[in-house]
Amino acid sequence: MENASVIDCLLKHKSIRKYTADPVPESVLHQVLEAGTRAATTGNMQLYSVIVTKDPARKKALAPLHFNQPMITEAPVVLTFTADVNRFQQWCEQREAGRAYDNLLWYVCATLDCMLMAQNTVVAAEALGLGTCFLGTTLYTAKEQCAFFELPAGVMPLTTLTLGYPAEQPEATDRLPLEGIVHSERYTPYTPQAIDRLFGPKESSELTRRLLEENGLPNLAQIFTLRRYPLADNLTFSQHYLELLKTQGFLDKK
Amino acid sequence: MENASVIDCLLKHKSIRKYTADPVPESVLHQVLEAGTRAATTGNMQLYSVIVTKDPARKKALAPLHFNQPMITEAPVVLTFTADVNRFQQWCEQREAGRAYDNLLWYVCATLDCMLMAQNTVVAAEALGLGTCFLGTTLYTAKEQCAFFELPAGVMPLTTLTLGYPAEQPEATDRLPLEGIVHSERYTPYTPQAIDRLFGPKESSELTRRLLEENGLPNLAQIFTLRRYPLADNLTFSQHYLELLKTQGFLDKK
Repeated sequence: MENASVIDCLLKHKSIRKYTADPVPESVLHQVLEAGTRAATTGNMQLYSVIVTKDPARKKALAPLHFNQPMITEAPVVLTFTADVNRFQQWCEQREAGRAYDNLLWYVCATLDCMLMAQNTVVAAEALGLGTCFLGTTLYTAKEQCAFFELPAGVMPLTTLTLGYPAEQPEATDRLPLEGIVHSERYTPYTPQAIDRLFGPKESSELTRRLLEENGLPNLAQIFTLRRYPLADNLTFSQHYLELLKTQGFLDKK
Repeated sequence: MENASVIDCLLKHKSIRKYTADPVPESVLHQVLEAGTRAATTGNMQLYSVIVTKDPARKKALAPLHFNQPMITEAPVVLTFTADVNRFQQWCEQREAGRAYDNLLWYVCATLDCMLMAQNTVVAAEALGLGTCFLGTTLYTAKEQCAFFELPAGVMPLTTLTLGYPAEQPEATDRLPLEGIVHSERYTPYTPQAIDRLFGPKESSELTRRLLEENGLPNLAQIFTLRRYPLADNLTFSQHYLELLKTQGFLDKK
């Protein structure tokens, strides 16, 4: 049954952070990225680019931009996904059609398309026995990523995916119950009781118990706001990202 | 072979704009969205919500917000995908952990996560015999979408997916050659010759020939910049979207 195996592949997803030393054959990487590009794209404009990092010296240099998470140097392949209106606009200018896409709307369009492509890449990779992990650090160091990859105006780094053959088999992580994220016809405000019910299982898990003990904090929400993703960092990174949107040409015009 | 069928499912993707009258069973919709939520998500925070529109009266009222594209009223199910930090922040506040995610960084994080989930939803839907079509109009009328779906602060509309059983079998659309979107180690600037080579097949296609004739324009690039997505509209929609990011609380803080 085709249906069953595709759904099964999606349901089995786990982020893989440890990889074997086996390289990813070029033909496999090609197949994975090809499947990626079959995702829907606004006006079939394909406003994205992917940068492949395989060179060990480059991975070593890239690692600090991902706060030295070991996956960057240990995974055989690192993919950096970017929203890219540069290529399309260059084509338009070459055809005397003018520039129309270096603005916020098209940063968002390009971002949406890029992420559809990124997820297809993940699904294809997992179907071929590879493991993957997204790194959110790309957004925190977006300016440095631009310099590292020599991204021209019109291109914004979005996310990074490490890719390799799994050397671990972690448990699947929990998810909120589906009714917690799906709304019927209108957005239903969350009552305090609904919030307690939705987050309760996560809060009472063994993983949470260990995290609270390690961090000396009274609840899981504070692990997020005080340790993992604190406000001061978020505001700094937001300011940097806004400035980069200007530098890369997406907020120039009024 | 599981591998082959998953890759095959991804490669076969086509946007479906015509649907049969068959409803989508609730159990199928549940399975599709459940598979959606298995996509990776930053810190397992699931910063997204999906709004299901099935009520014919609501679909009729929603259609103008999508410039009356017929898929909205004809598809049995319309899914509106939103970036949502509201639910998570409400939880944090209820646990006396403060607010940390109503800023630009987390609008982007939530957007990335939402789109990974959206693409998993598409793959699952297609595996179960459904057809889908993304509508970019959600961004153009984002403010009106907020009012229509009663989205609170912390929630931004991103994209819309129509869902139903296919009543057409369109040809797969073309894509740029893979080397046109993949870069090795560094972003390689596109030479004018590279642009000509990459876009050449698209420009000389039968579809393009028909488009140029219908529009009375000399080349495909001008179809994009003068007809489909012209600069003046892009700047207007960009301005509206920026204002909405403020209204919804993502650009408040300095």
